[in-house]
Amino acid sequence: MVRAELEAVVNFNRERPDVYGNAHPKSLLRAIQEDGDHLSKLTNKHVYSADQFDREELLQIFRLAAKYEANPDRFGTSLQGQILISAFYEPSTRTRLSFESAWHRLGGDIMSITDRSTTGLAKGESLADVGEMFNNYGDCVVLRDTNANSVRDMMGALRIPIINAGNGTDEHPTQAFADLYTILKWKPSLIADPGGEKINLCLIGLPSKMRTVRSLLKLVALFPECFSQVTIVNDQQQNEMFDKGQLESLVQSGLNIQTSDNLQKVLPDADVVYINAIAWEGNSFNQYGNQFAINSDSPLKKGAIVLHPLARGAELCRSLDNTAHNWYFAQARGAVFLRQALLTCLVRRAERVLDIV
Amino acid sequence: MVRAELEAVVNFNRERPDVYGNAHPKSLLRAIQEDGDHLSKLTNKHVYSADQFDREELLQIFRLAAKYEANPDRFGTSLQGQILISAFYEPSTRTRLSFESAWHRLGGDIMSITDRSTTGLAKGESLADVGEMFNNYGDCVVLRDTNANSVRDMMGALRIPIINAGNGTDEHPTQAFADLYTILKWKPSLIADPGGEKINLCLIGLPSKMRTVRSLLKLVALFPECFSQVTIVNDQQQNEMFDKGQLESLVQSGLNIQTSDNLQKVLPDADVVYINAIAWEGNSFNQYGNQFAINSDSPLKKGAIVLHPLARGAELCRSLDNTAHNWYFAQARGAVFLRQALLTCLVRRAERVLDIV
Amino acid sequence: MVRAELEAVVNFNRERPDVYGNAHPKSLLRAIQEDGDHLSKLTNKHVYSADQFDREELLQIFRLAAKYEANPDRFGTSLQGQILISAFYEPSTRTRLSFESAWHRLGGDIMSITDRSTTGLAKGESLADVGEMFNNYGDCVVLRDTNANSVRDMMGALRIPIINAGNGTDEHPTQAFADLYTILKWKPSLIADPGGEKINLCLIGLPSKMRTVRSLLKLVALFPECFSQVTIVNDQQQNEMFDKGQLESLVQSGLNIQTSDNLQKVLPDADVVYINAIAWEGNSFNQYGNQFAINSDSPLKKGAIVLHPLARGAELCRSLDNTAHNWYFAQARGAVFLRQALLTCLVRRAERVLDIV
Repeated sequence: MVRAELEAVVNFNRERPDVYGNAHPKSLLRAIQEDGDHLSKLTNKHVYSADQFDREELLQIFRLAAKYEANPDRFGTSLQGQILISAFYEPSTRTRLSFESAWHRLGGDIMSITDRSTTGLAKGESLADVGEMFNNYGDCVVLRDTNANSVRDMMGALRIPIINAGNGTDEHPTQAFADLYTILKWKPSLIADPGGEKINLCLIGLPSKMRTVRSLLKLVALFPECFSQVTIVNDQQQNEMFDKGQLESLVQSGLNIQTSDNLQKVLPDADVVYINAIAWEGNSFNQYGNQFAINSDSPLKKGAIVLHPLARGAELCRSLDNTAHNWYFAQARGAVFLRQALLTCLVRRAERVLDIV
Repeated sequence: MVRAELEAVVNFNRERPDVYGNAHPKSLLRAIQEDGDHLSKLTNKHVYSADQFDREELLQIFRLAAKYEANPDRFGTSLQGQILISAFYEPSTRTRLSFESAWHRLGGDIMSITDRSTTGLAKGESLADVGEMFNNYGDCVVLRDTNANSVRDMMGALRIPIINAGNGTDEHPTQAFADLYTILKWKPSLIADPGGEKINLCLIGLPSKMRTVRSLLKLVALFPECFSQVTIVNDQQQNEMFDKGQLESLVQSGLNIQTSDNLQKVLPDADVVYINAIAWEGNSFNQYGNQFAINSDSPLKKGAIVLHPLARGAELCRSLDNTAHNWYFAQARGAVFLRQALLTCLVRRAERVLDIV
Repeated sequence: MVRAELEAVVNFNRERPDVYGNAHPKSLLRAIQEDGDHLSKLTNKHVYSADQFDREELLQIFRLAAKYEANPDRFGTSLQGQILISAFYEPSTRTRLSFESAWHRLGGDIMSITDRSTTGLAKGESLADVGEMFNNYGDCVVLRDTNANSVRDMMGALRIPIINAGNGTDEHPTQAFADLYTILKWKPSLIADPGGEKINLCLIGLPSKMRTVRSLLKLVALFPECFSQVTIVNDQQQNEMFDKGQLESLVQSGLNIQTSDNLQKVLPDADVVYINAIAWEGNSFNQYGNQFAINSDSPLKKGAIVLHPLARGAELCRSLDNTAHNWYFAQARGAVFLRQALLTCLVRRAERVLDIV
């Protein structure tokens, strides 16, 4: 490379492109009044399923996340002296680094396990015994495993909190929190102005097999008054699309659930488009709905935002990256603060961060 | 899961069950008078074999461990600025996390190597060169390798201390320290009241092949006056049971060594029952003595305690977990403090912790 | 082992042998006047290739490294609050630990990725997306990959600095910095006394295939007045020895480049002998020039120094370790301080270390 070409390649800009979903968390901070009481239950509760959380609890978690995001350098000692056991038996870099970054930024220490074969599980050790071991070594556990029962099996022995970071096809609660946090940051009026504008949510994915979709729908069901409609888009038959009881439960919460296999028809009405193609099954992943891809030519509403839990493949075209629709990078960024909020509460350090203790 | 069932599953208690071996280290602190002089040799000595240590040195290490265990939050900066190289060429989570937790709690930093194939050893680099490299990068090394010579080969080049965390079938000194520490915490009178009650120790395992048993016997041999009898229980012929010279050495120390293949006959007299089934040989492990299992129906003495280095298999039944015999969890918990004591001395930070410097 | 033998084996000395390349960085500190302006470009520039750097910039990096090396315990909070993403997709322990040690010593936090298969890349994620993810999780990236394009592909998306820690056969710039830093520490008069003595450099290796040699030659080309001659020694034909344009570029810089396949003939004139045998190609390594080995019987000049990026094989005999020629250990030691200097500048913390800000 000639010098001039090299200079161009090695120089970089620290500023985010303006279009990258840049709503300041301030507005969400104003929309939710702080009430730490709702966070008190988190001090002795594992984070296993999106089903555990009620609306008020979630709003306080979001408020705390917004507080962290508005003041990213202020709370560098909140988790001082605390040890996180970061156990990713199912390979992941994105979710692992998101949690580890969250924990480091608040001054905590981390021990990582990234290879299931190095653990006692390879020697036939029970997950309950692994849990009892963790009780002696750390203050909080984050666990991801392809085996859907691992988190549950460990939970019974734990005397420190555990976060389910993805158990097979079952759930991924913190991703769902991050997704809804992003939506509310984008449009705080959904909380601040209860009788006001609702949004139309389009979910491209498979609720029966994708843990991110499964968990998100549960949380959306806590805010039915915010959504005019939720359309699930995929190519499966309805009996394959949902788990037993899943659809009924959502409808019962007050949501207007539609399904469709025609993405082009659904997009023009959507305010939020959530897309995912990958589902972890067993020890590998499968891709569903490859034909449901979106790009800068898709018939998106002018102010519509696109979310994706990432990593992405062909379903989310890079041509959308430099458009105002791109809120998937903001989603990843906000997820770190969301996890900070959750972790802080779980290890009983919220009193170092809340205004009113 | 219905909400009520979910709530039951996700709630947890931070308090340890009373029965989990709960003797406060205070009593051991009183039983041993502090004398830091005996720790001075540790400042320029690797921890390779249980053979290196004399009785007074061990008692001071135990006292320091008890001090840490009695004040777990007080010494958070003892190892500030120090870097541990945590090298586990032989897979382990339990021992690795025990050391790493110990180091983190005292404010130190850690670099982990968990995959032998990523090291220069894969390129044919000598362990001496790896040791010289470590001299430049850290302040202390913990090494576990299936190859029994690795620790020794590296030691020759090291100018920082190394702890043998398990070298093949040879030794595992810190586990033995933790085991004896647990026994003395349980019954400090063994030290405080020298002419008083002795204890009957039953060791279910194979001294010739199990490094934990090998190292523990060496330490027990330093305190012959504390043990009325030591019975080794397994199903091997005596010439397979011990290494060359091992039995003679133990007898010479003053211990009353018995062997037996009849566990049910031995148990009723045992005050401490130590059980292990796994021996690492080469790159995998073998199980010995599967028929020597204990459970809540075993004829244990009323106040007998059970120890196991963990991970456990069928040989130590879960039915014992919620009985007063369960001191194996306390053993794992205390091991962290024991390692803190040792590590502190090795990197010359004892003056930050001892009362009399 | 009998006790006496054991004691001999477990005792160690913390003092470095005198012969281990012990020039204090003081002399280099005096030889270069501090001028932080030359470091300002580093605040928004990735470290990709040795081609990016000019002479003045390098000298200031070396001065900062010398400052760190002269005061190793003084700057323990320079990188407080900063997170390093240590991504070694190509296995390495030496370079990874060198960077991680450098970062820890300055008070920063680290997240390590040591297995390419655990990353989203295994799911088909693009390196640009991985880069965007890193933007949200850390403050600086160090990346090594066998694929020569990985660093470049990631750079385009990064808004935090990245250091190329080795991309296939292409470059390894920080190793080259460390190599030249060592030479200048050994003979600061090369800078302090510009018209004075020059040195004769012998490079045993293959510029076309060895990234360490490739990067070093580029830096040497910035100081042609310091070198009377540079002799490249290997057994390849000249058209295999250099990349297209590589030799011309070096000659154009003013260096007197010679080539030879007769090591014994070249050695007696060499002041600095740099030797390397390993080249990474694809996912494995190849050894070149096995017949070019040096040992304590080699016809080295009396005051000649030997450098090797390590890990070494048979090409650098251990018989040289305890001679005054051994500067390869000093090279590894100095590399940590060199990396500290570079990292500090990249994350805009130089103002915490420079005298004149």
